[in-house]
Amino acid sequence: MSEHFHEHDLNFDKPREECGVFGIYSAQPNDLAWLTYLGLFALQHRGQEAAGMCVSDGDRFHVEKDLGLVTQVFDERRLDSVRLAGAQVSIGHVRYSTTGSNLRFNAQPLTTRTNKGILGMAHNGNFVNALEVRREMLEEGALFATTNDSEVMLNLIARESRMDLVEATAAAMQRLRGGYACVLMSRSQLLGFRDPHGVRPLVIGQREDGAWVLASEPCALYAIGARLIRDVAPGELVWIDREGLHSLMVEARQPTPCSFEWIYFARSDSQLDGIDTHESRIRMGQQLAREKPVEADIVVPVPDSGIGAAIGYARESGIPFDYGLYKNPYAGRTFIAPTQEARELKVKMKLSPTSAVRGKRVVLVDDSIVRGTTSRQIVNLLRDAGATEVHFRVSSPPITHPCFYGIDTAARKELVASTHSVDEIRDLIGADTLAFISEQGLRKAIGGPGLCSACFTGDYPAGTPLLNDVDKLALEV
Amino acid sequence: MSEHFHEHDLNFDKPREECGVFGIYSAQPNDLAWLTYLGLFALQHRGQEAAGMCVSDGDRFHVEKDLGLVTQVFDERRLDSVRLAGAQVSIGHVRYSTTGSNLRFNAQPLTTRTNKGILGMAHNGNFVNALEVRREMLEEGALFATTNDSEVMLNLIARESRMDLVEATAAAMQRLRGGYACVLMSRSQLLGFRDPHGVRPLVIGQREDGAWVLASEPCALYAIGARLIRDVAPGELVWIDREGLHSLMVEARQPTPCSFEWIYFARSDSQLDGIDTHESRIRMGQQLAREKPVEADIVVPVPDSGIGAAIGYARESGIPFDYGLYKNPYAGRTFIAPTQEARELKVKMKLSPTSAVRGKRVVLVDDSIVRGTTSRQIVNLLRDAGATEVHFRVSSPPITHPCFYGIDTAARKELVASTHSVDEIRDLIGADTLAFISEQGLRKAIGGPGLCSACFTGDYPAGTPLLNDVDKLALEV
Amino acid sequence: MSEHFHEHDLNFDKPREECGVFGIYSAQPNDLAWLTYLGLFALQHRGQEAAGMCVSDGDRFHVEKDLGLVTQVFDERRLDSVRLAGAQVSIGHVRYSTTGSNLRFNAQPLTTRTNKGILGMAHNGNFVNALEVRREMLEEGALFATTNDSEVMLNLIARESRMDLVEATAAAMQRLRGGYACVLMSRSQLLGFRDPHGVRPLVIGQREDGAWVLASEPCALYAIGARLIRDVAPGELVWIDREGLHSLMVEARQPTPCSFEWIYFARSDSQLDGIDTHESRIRMGQQLAREKPVEADIVVPVPDSGIGAAIGYARESGIPFDYGLYKNPYAGRTFIAPTQEARELKVKMKLSPTSAVRGKRVVLVDDSIVRGTTSRQIVNLLRDAGATEVHFRVSSPPITHPCFYGIDTAARKELVASTHSVDEIRDLIGADTLAFISEQGLRKAIGGPGLCSACFTGDYPAGTPLLNDVDKLALEV
Amino acid sequence: MSEHFHEHDLNFDKPREECGVFGIYSAQPNDLAWLTYLGLFALQHRGQEAAGMCVSDGDRFHVEKDLGLVTQVFDERRLDSVRLAGAQVSIGHVRYSTTGSNLRFNAQPLTTRTNKGILGMAHNGNFVNALEVRREMLEEGALFATTNDSEVMLNLIARESRMDLVEATAAAMQRLRGGYACVLMSRSQLLGFRDPHGVRPLVIGQREDGAWVLASEPCALYAIGARLIRDVAPGELVWIDREGLHSLMVEARQPTPCSFEWIYFARSDSQLDGIDTHESRIRMGQQLAREKPVEADIVVPVPDSGIGAAIGYARESGIPFDYGLYKNPYAGRTFIAPTQEARELKVKMKLSPTSAVRGKRVVLVDDSIVRGTTSRQIVNLLRDAGATEVHFRVSSPPITHPCFYGIDTAARKELVASTHSVDEIRDLIGADTLAFISEQGLRKAIGGPGLCSACFTGDYPAGTPLLNDVDKLALEV
Repeated sequence: MSEHFHEHDLNFDKPREECGVFGIYSAQPNDLAWLTYLGLFALQHRGQEAAGMCVSDGDRFHVEKDLGLVTQVFDERRLDSVRLAGAQVSIGHVRYSTTGSNLRFNAQPLTTRTNKGILGMAHNGNFVNALEVRREMLEEGALFATTNDSEVMLNLIARESRMDLVEATAAAMQRLRGGYACVLMSRSQLLGFRDPHGVRPLVIGQREDGAWVLASEPCALYAIGARLIRDVAPGELVWIDREGLHSLMVEARQPTPCSFEWIYFARSDSQLDGIDTHESRIRMGQQLAREKPVEADIVVPVPDSGIGAAIGYARESGIPFDYGLYKNPYAGRTFIAPTQEARELKVKMKLSPTSAVRGKRVVLVDDSIVRGTTSRQIVNLLRDAGATEVHFRVSSPPITHPCFYGIDTAARKELVASTHSVDEIRDLIGADTLAFISEQGLRKAIGGPGLCSACFTGDYPAGTPLLNDVDKLALEV
Repeated sequence: MSEHFHEHDLNFDKPREECGVFGIYSAQPNDLAWLTYLGLFALQHRGQEAAGMCVSDGDRFHVEKDLGLVTQVFDERRLDSVRLAGAQVSIGHVRYSTTGSNLRFNAQPLTTRTNKGILGMAHNGNFVNALEVRREMLEEGALFATTNDSEVMLNLIARESRMDLVEATAAAMQRLRGGYACVLMSRSQLLGFRDPHGVRPLVIGQREDGAWVLASEPCALYAIGARLIRDVAPGELVWIDREGLHSLMVEARQPTPCSFEWIYFARSDSQLDGIDTHESRIRMGQQLAREKPVEADIVVPVPDSGIGAAIGYARESGIPFDYGLYKNPYAGRTFIAPTQEARELKVKMKLSPTSAVRGKRVVLVDDSIVRGTTSRQIVNLLRDAGATEVHFRVSSPPITHPCFYGIDTAARKELVASTHSVDEIRDLIGADTLAFISEQGLRKAIGGPGLCSACFTGDYPAGTPLLNDVDKLALEV
Repeated sequence: MSEHFHEHDLNFDKPREECGVFGIYSAQPNDLAWLTYLGLFALQHRGQEAAGMCVSDGDRFHVEKDLGLVTQVFDERRLDSVRLAGAQVSIGHVRYSTTGSNLRFNAQPLTTRTNKGILGMAHNGNFVNALEVRREMLEEGALFATTNDSEVMLNLIARESRMDLVEATAAAMQRLRGGYACVLMSRSQLLGFRDPHGVRPLVIGQREDGAWVLASEPCALYAIGARLIRDVAPGELVWIDREGLHSLMVEARQPTPCSFEWIYFARSDSQLDGIDTHESRIRMGQQLAREKPVEADIVVPVPDSGIGAAIGYARESGIPFDYGLYKNPYAGRTFIAPTQEARELKVKMKLSPTSAVRGKRVVLVDDSIVRGTTSRQIVNLLRDAGATEVHFRVSSPPITHPCFYGIDTAARKELVASTHSVDEIRDLIGADTLAFISEQGLRKAIGGPGLCSACFTGDYPAGTPLLNDVDKLALEV
Repeated sequence: MSEHFHEHDLNFDKPREECGVFGIYSAQPNDLAWLTYLGLFALQHRGQEAAGMCVSDGDRFHVEKDLGLVTQVFDERRLDSVRLAGAQVSIGHVRYSTTGSNLRFNAQPLTTRTNKGILGMAHNGNFVNALEVRREMLEEGALFATTNDSEVMLNLIARESRMDLVEATAAAMQRLRGGYACVLMSRSQLLGFRDPHGVRPLVIGQREDGAWVLASEPCALYAIGARLIRDVAPGELVWIDREGLHSLMVEARQPTPCSFEWIYFARSDSQLDGIDTHESRIRMGQQLAREKPVEADIVVPVPDSGIGAAIGYARESGIPFDYGLYKNPYAGRTFIAPTQEARELKVKMKLSPTSAVRGKRVVLVDDSIVRGTTSRQIVNLLRDAGATEVHFRVSSPPITHPCFYGIDTAARKELVASTHSVDEIRDLIGADTLAFISEQGLRKAIGGPGLCSACFTGDYPAGTPLLNDVDKLALEV
């Protein structure tokens, strides 16, 4: 019996972002399929299970999507099939998928024909009351082709047959609760909107040629030569058409952007809500060094997610930074492994210790611990390579609660910190000492007016699903 | 520049059936995915562009579909992914697809979640008033994920939220007009229905183990060891559940089954509405020999579609049957050809003359002439091989009108018989003589109480789309 | 557990030709890769396991080959990769492969660098003393990259370092015994040669543009617009260069071309050694009707291999020909089947009875019986469909001996006729009567000066391998 | 027009290692195909164009190889096809391929049948007199199936028909000159050998279960749970059979291992000839800081190749290390790009600056400069991101000469340092200052008794090919 490892399996012990979105509107015809491809490629880290885009020239409306990486889904033939000479609007999506047999049909963007013409929509995040709204609409005779939240939003929009697309979208935003960032297009408009708390990110950029761009992270703007203009504000709906960029504040609450964007998800070349990710990670490391100092010989990051915090820890502590774990750059490829060896191989094929750790007291810095299984293996690797002490430092607080706003943190019972004390976790992973940054320390390191830290505290700013629906969400295929 | 030929290109000068449907209900759990695969394989000649199936065990509901032949879409991995241990109901579909970029999304079965639970539907044929109904429902706030007629039907069914599935389906049948045969499944029921004129075929079979089967042709029943019980009657709705087979006559009119099923589409081992296809083709050949005799040395079929009529013509005329055209069995594979040579190669790579025609006066028998381009090349092949005379005999009348009931006969202006006399066509294709069977002769050869011969006469028993919609149908992608 | 059926599995109960060869030389630069592709496509029936070609423009020398059908191996990218603008010489090959893990490396053409420059070679047939010669050369320090007979020939050619390519090839022909037809190319010459008995076929053609063509069958000439000039004579070596076509009679013996080329292998539009295949098959059927008459209602061929003989049988006997078995044109595709049902499905998915046999006494005509398993199932199909009697007529004598000249007739113990009498076979397959054509009758029906009928008589005109080597041949992977 | 980027294109401005080799011998039957797969996966960085392995159980001898990454070539089906239950010996290979149409046929291991039985061989490096020896053997009647150096070695071995495999291999080593490390297997023996100067690396390891392993780098030992025993000595031939590990010193010269193994090729968790790569890279950075100091704010590595030297530079200089360039982990995937944008995208899609460089004087550390095109783009990226000064530091001396021992450094005229002074290169790449480590400094940083630095000095320890053959090597396809 063999198993296959894929990209996402290698990060199986990390929280998983469920999506990245991208949109572009160009008054002058442009090769938007190509620009969307570049943008999605830059957002690939936000979702590796599926990719898709739709493109319109004001008349035709093409869509392609499938399971796989952006570069796998869009081979030359398929990219050509969505390339429209006079393209004016396009959106795209990358996705971390949930399980189930109907994966392909849940890929985004979702496209549908409505009384407002053909629409395409892609979202990042979750509507916590989607199932309630869905049940209600089913009773009224609606069809649902997918189990995708976007379809609930699109049904709400279509139902308002007397409103125009912008009004109907604003109405739908008011009906749905949760943490989300969405892009939506018709043949002639590009819309983007963010939940009232701004849990999920969405930024606005512009190219020299005037084209407007929306994306989950600024790196996707840079990838196509656009400048970062600003973030979409929490609760804001923006739309772009022939006349330019318009804005409507639908409903703003206390901003609580997701702290994990800075801890782990966002690329180190991104800035979100005015805060630079690389710099914030260095500050987390510095804060961690102040809060949880230790006497040691070198500071070693778990590559690549722990690099920023490790640099910060080294700077603050004065302990030298070193590269004690080699990361195999081919580790993301589909890999075959005998079932009985699969678990351990996932780590061994990805990481191996360098000589830097031999005979050293090591401060090992990672961004988070979810299940703890990977952490234990990394500690073992270091000890086998001759590390005399391993002091594990984590640049996020213990994760004790599930996320309902679009991040797959694993079921609650699998979260090691929800059932074990820090000392118990230390014993489980076999470190000499283990310490997490404090929630206050994290807030200080990131900065900004507010943060969603529901997964550390259970305090959900945008509410939770009905208890019954939590189970259904788990069951739904 | 190169072109690729595919399966369907090699029959590009034939009318194209748009679909084949299959459904099975088994009170005892059975490997329905495998049986549906076998059934679809037997119906492959009815559609080569896409294939799909959905399967339920009463709880789970899996669907897989894609572009390609049945054996291409369902490799082992994919067939396994719809295989449910306790499967009780399954439907499947093969399709000749229309053009456009959204082909994949129009593949069937169409599945959707409704107030009657999750439903899967597959159809053969067309609803002529689908666009009217669609417009009306869009206004009311409905979404349409596809341009597929099945989705209109499903919306009609979902809208009747107080009716059960059977009642709602019957209501929907009364709202839609056209020529169609459909299968529809929920987690616990299999439904099948046929338009009031019975334009498109649908048969009922049963296996020894009690499982009920619905299919476009009996060959799909035989393929899974089922007996033919009877045809679904025109205007009849049948449904199968734990209790057995139920029937409701929704609305019956004068039966006018499509004559092309016997002329060309149906396999020669099928019987439809009590009439055997192979036998009817022999009778067409005999009738043609009586109506349009000629002095000649051998009767040669265009393989494989002209074989039955050629045998009939030879028997009636006493002229020896011979195998004058070799058909390359590999001709259906994807083939690369330089653009400038592509047209002629389509015929040359498929057919080549044997020595049988050398020095002979040949009666060449084919089932139909659509554009005439292929016919001309076949006549040329025979002359190059030494045939002294070529007398072309066609076992269908001239096709002068488009079909609105699910057959792609090419646009009217491309139908050579709509703009040319028989003598002009004879000159175009270069035959010494050319003759078609008469419409009366065809009716006599097929037999039965009625026939749709709209494509020969313009007399459409189930009506036509609104004039505007005819254009839209052509434009829709 | 599942099995996959492929193309060749569906003919598993037929003798298997091991190869088809093709070569072309054009003094003017031409698109020879494309012409070779067309030629190989026409020879596809001679081998479905692997395909390959090499092409030279006098300077570069490109080769591509792989497992699969011609159209699978040569997708657009791969065909382009062997397309040389100024190509002057090319050879190609299709192959029925033997088993073993190193299949890919045995695909042809075989290319090698020698003191005569780079050479490419492809063969049909076998050298019966190849293993002896090989052992001898290994002792002398030769390397063998493959287990392919062509490599033995190439080593013999290379060893004659003082001779030119033509002389060395003639010398090698004298050293090797067996039944074979080969094409061989250098950067500037095309050679073709046939064993002294002419067991395997090879024909010469020419295009209007002067290009010379060699091929296993004339159908490959016609496919590229070439005329049949003549057959290569038994024992003749021909070569083509800038000056034209040259010939050398190396060693001619009593011609004994393989009778199975006319019985089954060659396409019905081919002529070999002056004898037309389709006509000879009709004569076989007529002879069979004279030798083994029976009272019956219809004559039914096993499609497609029995068609010619069935027409002949019908003509001679006056019993009507009919199309009693439908052959599914998609049956050659890779197909998945549960292991326990696989055997029976191989026939059922390919053939199904039409109504023509119902209530009839059927003469069933096929070209050969190897193992008999398929024959039994076909007889069963006809009885299940209502045939009242089944009279099996075979247009070849019983196969009792293995072929050592390139045809895989199955191991001797699997040949039903080597261990069973005709009456016993009749009982095994369940026919009412069974009769084979006589060897004399076959010779008369085919005509010509001589025939290899070793598989019917055990009389091997070109000798057999050493007894030890027969076993080694079986073991070799 | 579009181009496709592949793995290797993204390192197109780096020297390219041509191969990695692996071999394993296990007296007890073991799953050697799986262990070889793991070993090759760990060596993937040494060659991304092709991968292959052969496996024997003492009787059967299976081989699989193809173009692609290890994980692409060996999908489950293919890995299974070389899995022999009682496997005792296996070798494997990964390769950076040269251009030409016959790539597939040059993939390794090369297998051949000889008077010493079937042999498989894989090599890293080059024999500089291979063409001379090849010419000589062609004259004697030898065939060459490939243009692969291994085949020359195998012909030499086969020619010694009176010697056993070990003796014949030792004789062949004496006949061939160059820089190489090879593994060779028969059905019952595993051999490994390294050129007399030890230019290319080869190490010996052993697993707990007693199996002996040979590999280009220790990381492949660790990957399968083996310990590093020692390096194969320059000029040593080792062989392993049922009795254990044997050694023969064939011909030892002054050791001059390739300096680029430590500069760039070897993984940072490898030790070669007793010298740790990660530590040596830190020493290179420290040396560089001493030799070429500069006043600046941060030290930034070009990831991942410059990390070690950057850490060293930072430590020695006291300037803070920071992560100023983000490397997209998906950049190695096949990527489509419009031709006109392709060149610049190769860098942009792989690297993007973080905020760390904004307003900073940056020391940018890389391991080497080949053409300089990539370096210029990286300098531009940093300036665009706000770096006020860019001081480029290179941990290898200027590359002025081609390598004839297995590394593709680009043609001499493309080597920017062979035609430009350091100041000119600085201007070309747009850096404020540019400095390379000195050759003496490099020797000191690496340590050890000797080093091949031919590419910096033109002093070739193992000789060069004949002048004529240098051209032929370039032309050979």
